[in-house]
Amino acid sequence: GAAPAIVQAQAQVRWRLASSFPKSLDTIFGAADVFAKKVSEMTGGKFQVSVHAGGEIVPALQVVDAVQAGTVEIAHTAPYYFFGKDETFALGCAIPFGLNSRQMTAWMVEGNGLKLMRDFYRNYNIISFPGGNTGAQMGGWYRKEIKSIADMKGLKIRIGGFAGRVVERLGAVPQQIAGGEIYSALEKGTIDAAEWVGPYDDQKLGFNKVAPNYYYPGWWEGGPQLDFFINTKAYDSLSAEYKAVVEAASALAHVEMQARYDAKNPAALKQLVGSGTKLFKFPKDVMEAAFKESMAIYAELSAKNPNWKKVYEDYANFRRDQNLWFRFAEAGFDDFMQNQKL
Amino acid sequence: GAAPAIVQAQAQVRWRLASSFPKSLDTIFGAADVFAKKVSEMTGGKFQVSVHAGGEIVPALQVVDAVQAGTVEIAHTAPYYFFGKDETFALGCAIPFGLNSRQMTAWMVEGNGLKLMRDFYRNYNIISFPGGNTGAQMGGWYRKEIKSIADMKGLKIRIGGFAGRVVERLGAVPQQIAGGEIYSALEKGTIDAAEWVGPYDDQKLGFNKVAPNYYYPGWWEGGPQLDFFINTKAYDSLSAEYKAVVEAASALAHVEMQARYDAKNPAALKQLVGSGTKLFKFPKDVMEAAFKESMAIYAELSAKNPNWKKVYEDYANFRRDQNLWFRFAEAGFDDFMQNQKL
Repeated sequence: GAAPAIVQAQAQVRWRLASSFPKSLDTIFGAADVFAKKVSEMTGGKFQVSVHAGGEIVPALQVVDAVQAGTVEIAHTAPYYFFGKDETFALGCAIPFGLNSRQMTAWMVEGNGLKLMRDFYRNYNIISFPGGNTGAQMGGWYRKEIKSIADMKGLKIRIGGFAGRVVERLGAVPQQIAGGEIYSALEKGTIDAAEWVGPYDDQKLGFNKVAPNYYYPGWWEGGPQLDFFINTKAYDSLSAEYKAVVEAASALAHVEMQARYDAKNPAALKQLVGSGTKLFKFPKDVMEAAFKESMAIYAELSAKNPNWKKVYEDYANFRRDQNLWFRFAEAGFDDFMQNQKL
Repeated sequence: GAAPAIVQAQAQVRWRLASSFPKSLDTIFGAADVFAKKVSEMTGGKFQVSVHAGGEIVPALQVVDAVQAGTVEIAHTAPYYFFGKDETFALGCAIPFGLNSRQMTAWMVEGNGLKLMRDFYRNYNIISFPGGNTGAQMGGWYRKEIKSIADMKGLKIRIGGFAGRVVERLGAVPQQIAGGEIYSALEKGTIDAAEWVGPYDDQKLGFNKVAPNYYYPGWWEGGPQLDFFINTKAYDSLSAEYKAVVEAASALAHVEMQARYDAKNPAALKQLVGSGTKLFKFPKDVMEAAFKESMAIYAELSAKNPNWKKVYEDYANFRRDQNLWFRFAEAGFDDFMQNQKL
C-alpha cells in the first residue's frame, strides 16, 4: 500500500540528444523518442531530453565527436559508423558474419560485451547503453541478378562502412552515398546495387522501382545494435536514481525498436513482392567467399589493433558458442514453422 | 546540465511479489529480482518490492488468485499455468507451434498482443507487463529413442500444462509432476520421459543421468513469455512516475532474462553432450502430427471459447506474417552461420 508522501529533492536535468538518423526513419530515430519520453515520464518531467535529428545540431556522422567534447550530453547512433576512428567501434554494432540480434543482446547484457565496449568507449569520454537493434538486414537491391561470385566483379554497390572492405576483396567497388541520393544513383545506373536496411525502411525509399532484385541475407548486418552514447561527465553528474532511469529507459527503447522492425517488416515485404520485387538468396559461393575474406580481415586487425584484438577474441568465442546452441532448439523450431502453411 | 534541486513529494510504496518459481531457477526467478532492484534504484528506495519464491506466501500455481484478491500486489509467472481457468491465458505465454521469442515480443509491444491480453486479464483484476522469455525450449529427456510417431504410443511423459492435450492425441500419457519429483520418477521408470526447460535449467536437475536422449525442438514452447501480473487497484494507485518506473523496470527484466538464458545455455549443452547426452531432432512425423493436432485443438477452442477466439485470430495472423518474413533475412543469416566452422 501507499504510505504518506515524503518530501524529497531531485534535480532538474536538461539534455540534448543528437541522433545519427533522420526523422523519416521512424523505427531507428523513434528509439530516441521512446527513450526521452520514458525518462521524462519516470521523473515527472524533471529530467528532459530533447531529441534532434541528424544534422540539426551536429552532422549525423559526427555525434561521437559531439558527445566526446560535451557539445551534446547524449547521442543515438550505430557505433560502426565510426570504424574509421578505430575498427573496434564496429564490434559494438555489427561486423560481417557477426552475432544476430538476440545473440548481440546476450553478449552485451550477460556476456562481456557491455563491459568490454565500455572500456573502449571510455577513451572517447563515452558510456554506452544498448538502444535498439534492426535484426538481420536484407542484402540490398540489384539491377541485375547475381548468379555467382563472378557477378560481383566490378559491381558498383552502395554499402555501409565496414562491409565495403569485404566486398572490395570480392572485386566489387563499394560506394559511400547518403540515403537521400541512393535512389537517383541507382536509377541512372551510376551504381549497380544498393543496400539500406530491410523491407520497411527500403520501401520508403522506393528502390524496388529501379532495381527489382532483392537479395538476402545481409550477411554484414546480422543484428546491428544501436547505442545511446552518453558523455561520461554528464552521466557521472546524475543522481543514482537518474542513472537507473537512464538504464531502464534504454532497455525499454532497446526492446521497442526490435519489436517495431519485426512487426512492420512483413507487411512491407508482402507489398514489395506484390509489386514485382524478386527475392533471391545470395549464391553460396558469394557467401562463402565473403565469409573467408571477413575472417581474414579480422585476423589482420587482431595483429595490428590491440583494442580490436581484446574485444574480438571474446566476441568470437561467444559467437561460436551461440551458434552451437541456436542450431538446435531455436533453428529447429523456426525452420519447422517457416515450412508450415499457417 | 543540472539545475538546482527542487522540492518534490513522492510516495513510499511497499509491494509483495509472489513468484511462481523456486529460487534455484536463477534465470526465471532472477527476473523478479532484477525488476525489484531496478524499481528501488530508480526511486531512491521509496518504492520497494519484496520478492517471494513460489510457496512462500502462496502456492506457485495460485499467484493469479492472490493478485486477483489483492493478497499480493504483484506476481511473476508463466501465464499458461492458468489455462485451466481459461485457455486464453496460454496465448499470453506460449502455445504449441506458436510465436518464437522475438515474434512474441513484437506481437506484445508493437502488435495487438499486450492490448488484447490486458483486455482479457482485466477480468482477473490484473494488468500485465512482459517480464522475460526463455527462448525456444528443448523437447525433453527420453529413456528410449523416439524413432517415429509409433514410439509416442503409451509414452508416459511429464509435460507442462497445455501441451499435454496435444501429446494425448498422439497416444502419449501426459503426467503432471512437480519439478523436484521428476528425477526420481524418471530414474524409477514411473515415467518414460520428461521435459523441463533447456540445457541450463535441465542440467541442474540431472535428468541426463537417467534419460540420455535429449530431443529438440520443444515445439510446445517456441518462445514462452513470462509476465508481471499486477493487481489493477494497486497499479491504479501509483503515481504517473511510478507507473512508468514499473513499465521500464519490466522491460529491463524482459531483456535480461532472455539474455541470461542465451548466454548460459551453450556451456550447459556442451557439458551435457560431453557427459554422454545424445541430441536428437524429433522425427518429422511426430512434428507433423503434433502440428496437425494443435491446429485442430485451436479450431475447437475458437468454436467454444470467445475469449480465445478473439485473441487467437490476431495471434495467428501475426504468426503467419512473422514466419513469412523471418524465413528470409533472419533464417538465411542464422542458417549460414550455424554451418560455418567458427
